[in-house]
Order: sequence, then structure tokens, then C-alpha cells
Amino acid sequence: MILAKRRKKRLSPEEYVAGILSGNRRILSKAITLVESTLSDDYTLAQEVIRLCLPHSGKSFRLGITGVPGVGKSTFIDAFGTQLTEMGHKVAVLAVDPSSTLSRGSILGDKTRMNRLSHNPHAFIRPSPTRGSLGGVAQKSRESMILCEAAGYDFLIVETVGVGQSEVTVHSMVDFFLLLMLPNAGDELQGIKKGVMEMADALIINKSDGAFLKKARISKVAYSQALRLFPRKTSGWRPPVLLVSALEETGLAKVTDTLFTYQKQMLANGNWIRRRENQATHWLKESIQYRLLSAFFSHPQVEQSLSQWEEAIRKQRSSPAQAADALIAQWFNASKR
Amino acid sequence: MILAKRRKKRLSPEEYVAGILSGNRRILSKAITLVESTLSDDYTLAQEVIRLCLPHSGKSFRLGITGVPGVGKSTFIDAFGTQLTEMGHKVAVLAVDPSSTLSRGSILGDKTRMNRLSHNPHAFIRPSPTRGSLGGVAQKSRESMILCEAAGYDFLIVETVGVGQSEVTVHSMVDFFLLLMLPNAGDELQGIKKGVMEMADALIINKSDGAFLKKARISKVAYSQALRLFPRKTSGWRPPVLLVSALEETGLAKVTDTLFTYQKQMLANGNWIRRRENQATHWLKESIQYRLLSAFFSHPQVEQSLSQWEEAIRKQRSSPAQAADALIAQWFNASKR
Repeated sequence: MILAKRRKKRLSPEEYVAGILSGNRRILSKAITLVESTLSDDYTLAQEVIRLCLPHSGKSFRLGITGVPGVGKSTFIDAFGTQLTEMGHKVAVLAVDPSSTLSRGSILGDKTRMNRLSHNPHAFIRPSPTRGSLGGVAQKSRESMILCEAAGYDFLIVETVGVGQSEVTVHSMVDFFLLLMLPNAGDELQGIKKGVMEMADALIINKSDGAFLKKARISKVAYSQALRLFPRKTSGWRPPVLLVSALEETGLAKVTDTLFTYQKQMLANGNWIRRRENQATHWLKESIQYRLLSAFFSHPQVEQSLSQWEEAIRKQRSSPAQAADALIAQWFNASKR
Repeated sequence: MILAKRRKKRLSPEEYVAGILSGNRRILSKAITLVESTLSDDYTLAQEVIRLCLPHSGKSFRLGITGVPGVGKSTFIDAFGTQLTEMGHKVAVLAVDPSSTLSRGSILGDKTRMNRLSHNPHAFIRPSPTRGSLGGVAQKSRESMILCEAAGYDFLIVETVGVGQSEVTVHSMVDFFLLLMLPNAGDELQGIKKGVMEMADALIINKSDGAFLKKARISKVAYSQALRLFPRKTSGWRPPVLLVSALEETGLAKVTDTLFTYQKQMLANGNWIRRRENQATHWLKESIQYRLLSAFFSHPQVEQSLSQWEEAIRKQRSSPAQAADALIAQWFNASKR
């Protein structure tokens, strides 16, 4: 009986969409939960909600932010996001954190780390409970972005940690990619992985305050030099290095300036729309790849045979191509029944 | 009649394998051509040859080499390979060049650029006629490697150009990855793409001779500093920067030293076998991905519908997930018939 009552409470796609478009935060939250669900009923409903929200999406500034743990991402987003709302923007904060299975949702896991923003009526913070493979997490984040945009948020912040591939993913879904660094250049690149620095549209040296200010200035020179070693971006944009103290709230206006200068330039030279269009094509290919490979690797027969084939390859009894062919044939036969 | 005669000349798998194992270069060449063929008859035969060669493979030193055009890769390989043969090694040179469709097989296209090595009885040079997607090229190169190893080549050199993703691919199939640079650090990173520098197990500044020697020494310092900015490799190996003149044949002994020191260390600490095992698992996943996605994207119905869905996504009428689901369903239905 209770179950039946609960079922009745389930909103229709139209109710979801009406709620989202009116800016109802509770319904937006519910819709994102729906998108993040792994139940197949929820999937169908979520896709319908997304389809109806699509025409109202796409008009925000999509900002990606990364940096190693401890660099002060939460403090930065709290201060920077607050500044944006004071300028009249509506700010939504999402996270792509495929590692959360291990780290137990370290990113945004604690809303209190964004104390001001979490109580700000013009901001929407979505903690990251999403678990699973990067492909799956990415798809869900992109869909959540669409819902937030339909709900009227015109500035999206997508946060991730420096775990390698997730930066590539976040880079592929944002208009501008920001890399937060600590004021200690000359040390190892602070765990920042392959090419992350090259993907950045701007570097921010956070914690540029007090005793660190001198170090930060030296780091700025070092990072500026390092950035010059990379090939020039096709858009013509030269990533700047900016000094910020999220704690003392210095340097934030310069960040906003940089972002909107970038947007103005890229809208003018056509790179804004080009990047978005490339991303759309990329998303389709990635969705196909993700959904096709998920179907394949989650098939019980494939799961059963895979480790045997891996062993055969390691022992040089089978080539990868042979193993792949055998597994694919097995999957096709099993699916046909 | 002529066709019938030609058909008779086709070797059996056992004949191929006997020829390869006896070190017959003509048959090795024929077998690689078979592996590179896109005909489905050839594919089946090639896979059988590979299966029979597998137990005789895996014992070589697999060296990957990259660097921008003009860095002197051919001259380096010619001099370095010759030195290896003088040490008693049998050297095979392969290329991974997915861009050859455009550049018309620039890599190794001209055997005369490796003048000495191409006339050396202890060396085998395979120009790269392979065209097509990187996934396909990679699979064929890995299979050619197996054949060369079965033919007794104990030192494989896999060459590629700096076109981005191909370095990642070559890195995933070799024991040691060498990045050739020009003596002009401080300029742009010479077109070297994302993370290539980070993947390198050693940097070689080629053309370190004559008037360039001073510049080379300055570059060495700059690159050494740049390398220190990257996170330490899990194997504990610190990539050195070496000065070489392939033309004057200076610095080559130091390269050999570095390679074999690396091998010794990695064999001792278990990272040699670990890297190979990770690569085997990676190859299987990649083969599955390549063969599954190839089957999908080459399907006539998918080809027909794909651009319509891309347009729908760009126009915000459909989400990538919806489009992916529709295309996959269409493919499955069409394949079942």
C-alpha cells in the first residue's frame, strides 16, 4: 500500500519540466536524482524530461574547474560563485568525480565547505553522489547541465579532481577550463596529470596571500614560461596565469574579466559556437561508445569469458583480435536469443 | 586461369609460420602484408598465422620513437639501428602512422632515408602503407610486431610522428618510449602534443653537433627542468635527457646504455613484466572497442542515420543518449535479420 502511494507521487515528465522551467529547486534536484538513477524505468522517464528541457538549454557559460585536493577549490568556488550572483548571475555547481566510489564523494560531499553559496538563493549546489565509470558519470553530468540551464542557471561550474582522464571529460563539456594551482612551482607538477595544463584556458594560483605571496609571484613566472612551451591554441587564445586568494577574496574580479573577455572574443571569432558544436558531435560518439561497450561488458556471458581470454593473451595462446572476435560473436549470439 | 594459378600460390598458415620462424624475410614481408590487408579472407588467414607465431613472440626489446618531422628520426634510427646490429642484435623497424592517408606515407616511405640499415642483413625495415583509423593501424602494428619477434628480431623499433593520439598508442605497445627533440628549447614545444613529453622514458636532443651544440646544452637544462615538473613515474624511473648527433654518431652508446640499464632495473623490480601484462589487458579492451565500434559505424543504416542525429543534437532536438540508443537499437535490429 505504501509502495502504491509512493508510486503515485512519481511526477510525469510534463510536471518535471514545468517545475524545472519555473525554477523550482526541489524539482530540479529530483530530476537530477532521476538522471543519476541506474533503474531502467527511471532512465526512460529521465530521457523524456531531458528531451523536453533541451530547447531551453545551452545558453549558460559553462566553466570547468580542476586542481589537486588541497588547492582550495571549494573556497574558490564559494567566493567566486558568490561574486557572480552579486553580478546578477544564477550559478549552478556540479561535479564530475568518477573516483567517488573510492574517495566516498570527497568533492562537494560537504556542502558546508561552500558555506555562503549553499545558502544563496541564486545558487544551486549539487553534491556528487554519482558513482561508476567515467563514461557513465560524464553522460549524467552533461544531462544535469541541461536541466540546470533549463531551470535558468546561466553560469554552470563543473568541478573535478586531478585524477587524469576526468579532466579530459570535463574539458569536453565546458566553454572554459580553469586549472587551480598552489603557489609552489618548481616542485613536481602537484600531481597534475598528462596534458591537464595544456587543456587549461587559464591558470589560477590560489592561496596567493600572506607569506605565500612571494612564492606565488615566482610561480606565476614559472607557469607562464611552462605554458609558452605548449603549442598555441587554434582559437588564438593565450591562457593567462592569475594570482588569487579565495580566502582574502583578491584577484577574483580579474578572473571574471578574463572569462567574459574570452567569451566576447570567442563569440566574435566563431570559436564559441565551434567548440560547442564539436562537443555535441563528440558527445554523440561518446554516448554510443559508452552505451555499446556497457551493454557488451555487462553481459553475463561476456563477464564470464573475459578473464579467461585475458589469461590466454598473457600466456600468448591467443591474440587480442582473436579474443575480441570470439567475445563479440558470443555476445551477438547470446543477444539474439 | 591466371587467377586460379595465383590462388594456388597462396601459402598455408603452416608455410607462413615455417618461413617466418626460419627468418625468411620475403615470407615475413608477405605475412605482414596479409596482416595489413582489409579483405576478410586474408583476415582469417592472418589471424591463424599470428596464433601460431604467438608462442615464439614477446622476447624482444620494444622501443617506441617519436618526434616532429625534421627532428631526424630516420637518420637516428639508421645510425642507432646499425650500432645495435653491430652489437649482435637483429633489428626490425615498424611504423604507426595513421596520418599516412594525408601525408602519403611520409614515415619510412623512403627506405633510402635509412640507407645503411636497409642494406643490413640483420635489419628488417617495414615501410608504412597502413591507412585507416588509429585503432585499426594499432592492431595491425601490434600483430606485425608478433611476426617480427617470431622471425627472430630481438629489437623492435616502432616509429611514429607527433600527431597526438598516435603517441599514446605507440606508448601502449612498447617497453621504452623515446622522444626526439631539436636543440631549440624555449621555443614552442615543437608541436609536441598533450602529454607526449610526460610519456617519454628518455628525451634525446638530436642534431647536437657543430653550431647547435651550445644550444643543445641549454636545451638539455630546460628540458630537464620541464621533466621534473611531471609526477614521478610509478616504476621509479627518472627520464634522462641525452645529447645525440645521429649524423656524427655521437652519444649513441649512451642511449644504448640507458635502454639496457632501464631493462635491467625494470626486470629486477617487476615493472617490465607488469607493463607488458597491463598492455595485454589494454590491447584486449582496445581490440574489442575497435572491432565493436567498427562494426557499428560501418553499418550502412548507421552511416545513413548518423548525420541526421548529429544535426538533431546540434539543434537541441535530441540528447546524445537518446540518439545513441536509437542508433544502437537500429543496428541491432538490422543485424538480426
